[in-house]
Amino acid sequence: MTMPEPIQFHFDFSSPYGYLGAETIEALAARHGRSVAWHPFLLGVVFRSTGAQPLTNVPIKGDYAKRDMPRSARYYGVPFRMPSKFPIATQAPARITLWQRERDGDVGNLVKVFYRAYFVHDRDIGDPDVAADVAGECGLDRTAARAAVDDASIKDALRREVEASIAKGVFGSPFVFVDGEPFWGIDRFEQVGRWLAQGGF
Amino acid sequence: MTMPEPIQFHFDFSSPYGYLGAETIEALAARHGRSVAWHPFLLGVVFRSTGAQPLTNVPIKGDYAKRDMPRSARYYGVPFRMPSKFPIATQAPARITLWQRERDGDVGNLVKVFYRAYFVHDRDIGDPDVAADVAGECGLDRTAARAAVDDASIKDALRREVEASIAKGVFGSPFVFVDGEPFWGIDRFEQVGRWLAQGGF
Repeated sequence: MTMPEPIQFHFDFSSPYGYLGAETIEALAARHGRSVAWHPFLLGVVFRSTGAQPLTNVPIKGDYAKRDMPRSARYYGVPFRMPSKFPIATQAPARITLWQRERDGDVGNLVKVFYRAYFVHDRDIGDPDVAADVAGECGLDRTAARAAVDDASIKDALRREVEASIAKGVFGSPFVFVDGEPFWGIDRFEQVGRWLAQGGF
Repeated sequence: MTMPEPIQFHFDFSSPYGYLGAETIEALAARHGRSVAWHPFLLGVVFRSTGAQPLTNVPIKGDYAKRDMPRSARYYGVPFRMPSKFPIATQAPARITLWQRERDGDVGNLVKVFYRAYFVHDRDIGDPDVAADVAGECGLDRTAARAAVDDASIKDALRREVEASIAKGVFGSPFVFVDGEPFWGIDRFEQVGRWLAQGGF
């Protein structure tokens, strides 16, 4: 029997809904015998293609978003505190994640620890030293993780990951593919669940 | 015992997700002993405040939307065909709805018949004559409905309705208030359901 394809989970570390998705996608996947493949990307690069901007900067909609983010976190039962610095550039945690993925394969725990550092403990994971600290607390080699942030081959890997995400049609975070079918947003996870259960609808 | 406040349902007749919301909000409301108050508004006017534009015009995101709209319709079990003319100006059906609301109160059926005319039968309800036809088929006085589209007091009523929606923070369609709590999008209806059941969360 062939293993079913993992759920492809694309996310930016500065995305509140990406955080909520990261906290909930594995349970959803597991209910349907699937694993999760983690794809950090950079929303800022994607926004240059679509003309979008960070949600909290949009007039009127931004005020709603600031209310919806903690409310959605309560709805999903996930701890959440709006970071004092938002949004942030997320190259550092994205590169450490890709570095770890290339070495080991499983980065689910690291992704969630980065996200919680930012969205629960208000640590600026965009700072390479802070990101390396978090990786160290997660059991990785802090010095090697810090070096990965400035490593040319890892920078290239992130560039390729972002380009691949854009080529697949990713324009927001989280963005999920189930056997090639695209779903944008944690608010599509009910549809993802039905898609997994029925193989489409 | 006082009646609980109706669910305030704000929508634009050109909004696919507004249509899906209109087809599903009454059952959701009824499960919690609530009625629905219908508030047509004009997304075009709102978009001038937020800098947004019709979803299908946005690069990349628009292509996703064209896939997500019929898929979401299937998910909710609602018939859907993307209209050949999209988006449309919706003053005509909005004014007829307000005219009927001022005369009678209940417009739930009229709203759904307008929406189905556009999103199932591909009729251009933005055309005042077509909108009047649909109202006539719905059992209203066709001639009076057609006259309402050009009636200065009904035009004023729509202007007030749009301004009131914007003042309440409405920036998209559908947009729902439950006892003052704002929810944007049909993809927040699960949260609306929990809010109704628990009185907040």
